[in-house]
Amino acid sequence: MLTSPPSFSDIKRAHQRISEYIIQTPVMTSKNIDEIAGCELFFKCENFQKVGAFKMRGAANAIFSFTPEERVNGFACHSSGNHGQAVALAAKLAGAKAYVVMPKNASKVKIDAVKGYDAEVIFCEPNDQSRTQACEDVISRTGATLIHPFNDYNIIAGQATAAKELIESVEDLDCIIAPVGGGGLAAGTCLIAHHLDPNMEVYLGEPVAVDDAYQSLKAGKIIPNQSFDTIADGLKTTVGEKTFEILKEHVKEVFTVTEQEIIDAMKLIWERMKIVIEPSCAVPFAAILKNPKVFNGKRVGVILTGGNVDLSKLPF
Amino acid sequence: MLTSPPSFSDIKRAHQRISEYIIQTPVMTSKNIDEIAGCELFFKCENFQKVGAFKMRGAANAIFSFTPEERVNGFACHSSGNHGQAVALAAKLAGAKAYVVMPKNASKVKIDAVKGYDAEVIFCEPNDQSRTQACEDVISRTGATLIHPFNDYNIIAGQATAAKELIESVEDLDCIIAPVGGGGLAAGTCLIAHHLDPNMEVYLGEPVAVDDAYQSLKAGKIIPNQSFDTIADGLKTTVGEKTFEILKEHVKEVFTVTEQEIIDAMKLIWERMKIVIEPSCAVPFAAILKNPKVFNGKRVGVILTGGNVDLSKLPF
Repeated sequence: MLTSPPSFSDIKRAHQRISEYIIQTPVMTSKNIDEIAGCELFFKCENFQKVGAFKMRGAANAIFSFTPEERVNGFACHSSGNHGQAVALAAKLAGAKAYVVMPKNASKVKIDAVKGYDAEVIFCEPNDQSRTQACEDVISRTGATLIHPFNDYNIIAGQATAAKELIESVEDLDCIIAPVGGGGLAAGTCLIAHHLDPNMEVYLGEPVAVDDAYQSLKAGKIIPNQSFDTIADGLKTTVGEKTFEILKEHVKEVFTVTEQEIIDAMKLIWERMKIVIEPSCAVPFAAILKNPKVFNGKRVGVILTGGNVDLSKLPF
Repeated sequence: MLTSPPSFSDIKRAHQRISEYIIQTPVMTSKNIDEIAGCELFFKCENFQKVGAFKMRGAANAIFSFTPEERVNGFACHSSGNHGQAVALAAKLAGAKAYVVMPKNASKVKIDAVKGYDAEVIFCEPNDQSRTQACEDVISRTGATLIHPFNDYNIIAGQATAAKELIESVEDLDCIIAPVGGGGLAAGTCLIAHHLDPNMEVYLGEPVAVDDAYQSLKAGKIIPNQSFDTIADGLKTTVGEKTFEILKEHVKEVFTVTEQEIIDAMKLIWERMKIVIEPSCAVPFAAILKNPKVFNGKRVGVILTGGNVDLSKLPF
């Protein structure tokens, strides 16, 4: 188990460890979108990843870092969606049991998917206290090991592999941008970007409504979200201590975007690129459209984080 | 200009002619979808094609088959959508003017796209008579050459290149299935399939609501559609004389599907494969799900025809 921010070797080992359990997702481009954005965009399509999101990378790395003996009592997690699916599938592939604590109001698509991977779903109220209690209960009942969704160096090393594939497959990227929720993907992206190219600019996109990363980096300390009212349901979480320390050192700037900007950006990608993406992964693209001077003429890597959307509840 | 059904050489020449103007679209697979369908499906993603549909192949082949001198007065077509976009873009790439007759009730996304390729849009009433009249008017006014959407051997040769790429990139396909509207794609798919492998089974999918191909093949003569009430707006057209003659000789079976089966199949592909497809191209997949005994255990090529959907009018 990693006890400090992943080194380049740690991330390479993580990539090898998970390679047979993940999809090396394609990088898509669109001349049409490039014209609109005024820059060259390279979209890493983690919406095509197993379980429909990059979360499979971190969960697989965390779970397969345990020995078979250590996997006997299974794994537990709490998640509003993608991390739960990822732990469920990674545990299943590792021959272990998964217990997933989900808020009662999680989308049906995500609940069904978790159950489809043979995990036991435990419902809680949609608040931190109920979630923590439900998680503690299941761990004391089963002896399962907790897989934290982001504040864990093994998770961070796994999530870093998405940007690793992107940077290694596209020549001469000037910068890379990812969304930030709890910060697992963001921290992994920062680390691997600077391991591979110390001069690469790393940006983050965040909804104004849950701008804890923006506020925390400005204040130099973690400022938790007070509201959670965003369509980008993967980004409601406040950054963790481990992820925040990494972001502090590596992120050039966090751009915030409004709900309408997220919806417009999401619709544009659906319409022009013909792919299904979650609101959360429209956030970096919305940030690019909002800040043309920053990105103008550059070669920009964009992590599209996932594609798990409830089609009966689309915002357009 | 071709005056008989395209030979293998004709289709190879068409493919060379259009190669720099089209995208060699990816073939996607999904273990999840395969499990549901009980067979191995290889989806040719023409939703990622230029203009968002396979129609670019036929239009580019037809237009670039003319000499630069023959292109001077431009090209005209009538189309509820994708063919219009394709003629508009292909003409633009050939340095020629395009005139596109569209029904007043065509989707806004498609009208905007045609205009975006610098074509002149002429609106007509949504019926055959008005459409034909508007087309004749524009041709007599401008001297433009008509590009028929399907009943044209150059169009058929162009559309055949989608199945050509699919069959050449996937080993040992047992069968291939495409949707049928006017029959340009269907005829091209038949021809190239049997040029490459005389034993390959070619199936078609068609909405029950517009089952002219099914009825016509049963009767041995063209039976025009009487109603046009289907969500699969690319398939409302009755097969043409040239396409029907080819289908008669090559198609093993036409499967019809209901509107609800189309919507369910479309939703399943959006949800599981994270790609945006039109209702028309959910029709073959719906046919596969409806006829498990025919496809069970086989390696099946499926042409996904396009991804131009009005996101504000989704059926789910």
